[in-house]
Amino acid sequence: MRRTTTADDIKQLILTRNLKPGDPLPTEGELCETLDVSRSSVREAIRQLSTLDIVDVRHGHGTYVGKMSLAPMVEALVFRGVLSPEGSLHALREVVEVRLALDLALADLVVSRAMGSDEAHELGALVDEMVDRASRGEVFLEADRAFHTKLFAITGNQLAMQLVGAFWDVHTAVVPQLGIVPPHDIADTAAAHGDMLRCALNGDVEGYKQAVIEHYRPIQRSLEAATASTASDQP
Amino acid sequence: MRRTTTADDIKQLILTRNLKPGDPLPTEGELCETLDVSRSSVREAIRQLSTLDIVDVRHGHGTYVGKMSLAPMVEALVFRGVLSPEGSLHALREVVEVRLALDLALADLVVSRAMGSDEAHELGALVDEMVDRASRGEVFLEADRAFHTKLFAITGNQLAMQLVGAFWDVHTAVVPQLGIVPPHDIADTAAAHGDMLRCALNGDVEGYKQAVIEHYRPIQRSLEAATASTASDQP
Repeated sequence: MRRTTTADDIKQLILTRNLKPGDPLPTEGELCETLDVSRSSVREAIRQLSTLDIVDVRHGHGTYVGKMSLAPMVEALVFRGVLSPEGSLHALREVVEVRLALDLALADLVVSRAMGSDEAHELGALVDEMVDRASRGEVFLEADRAFHTKLFAITGNQLAMQLVGAFWDVHTAVVPQLGIVPPHDIADTAAAHGDMLRCALNGDVEGYKQAVIEHYRPIQRSLEAATASTASDQP
Repeated sequence: MRRTTTADDIKQLILTRNLKPGDPLPTEGELCETLDVSRSSVREAIRQLSTLDIVDVRHGHGTYVGKMSLAPMVEALVFRGVLSPEGSLHALREVVEVRLALDLALADLVVSRAMGSDEAHELGALVDEMVDRASRGEVFLEADRAFHTKLFAITGNQLAMQLVGAFWDVHTAVVPQLGIVPPHDIADTAAAHGDMLRCALNGDVEGYKQAVIEHYRPIQRSLEAATASTASDQP
């Protein structure tokens, strides 16, 4: 990635002035003067930082320090998933592998902190919603995403929580573009979330890990089926 | 993040024309005509896509489909680490936790494929270099990064490999800004890499996991010491 000096200068100014996400940035005019650069340089730098979610341009209001979310990563990964030379199938398999790895790796932490956590009740409601929707043959994307991010919120690790959300987004964006039939066993997936939560609340780490593995079985089956059917096209 | 329609249109065009990373994009003039937008819209969209590493502007040569690396994520995370409201220490602790989690989660895959892999020999040379440098009291950042990415290359999961590299970059960029004294036990860290490799080549998953945990001990000790000394500043 190419860095412009002005973008770096603005980042430095955010640090020096100890500005936090949501704080207003100096105006374009002040930035020109302070950094001794042209208005067009400031504008380009702001656009670049805005794409990275480092600043937040609220039209008609001004420019603020951004939330620095993982949205730019999701955007690039989704797009890479779609056009990867190894094929989207391969990209999705990698995302599923990383999601599974993260879920298993943080199992101890989730299970040890789940009982009595603020999230326990909300997670229960999300499981009920997923099971209910599945019983009516409906999908439950929002509840699914909320379940996985709230589960990781238990760990207190915001980075892990954002990563899980980001990979969930990549996963969900890539799946339909593959033309994979969504798993018929939608009820199984809903139930697997319930098993994960039950084991977490019972302090059962091994049961939780098993439920995590079961949770990814339907998508893994779909991936295997899709890979087999396109095997002749692969290098 | 704000998306401009023109950026989305260019992404769509990359897909429709089946362009791959490194392929040339149509010229600015062609894009204006094909997408029926102004030259300034095309330029802004190209800049935005360039920040995300989705296109690669090679000045004097033209514009190409980019590599879609995780560099934008690293940039945002490093910066967030530096100004996070919870403090950089907290951000670094999260990165270390995620790195440890990924290493442990992919342990089975690394160990099962390490023996006889293309990477085994190179990894051995990197360990020798680290041990050698440590014995002379020198740091070994490049060898360290190469070790971790090559180790994950064994898994065949490019996303995991890039993530490990990206978090290594964030980790290394944030550490000096914290003013944490680099671990005195630099020789221990070098040796821990050797233990990881030896266990991987011996097919010893439990030994490998233990070596991974030991590998992060020095930085965790530094983090604890720094947290204790700033505890009174924390909310």
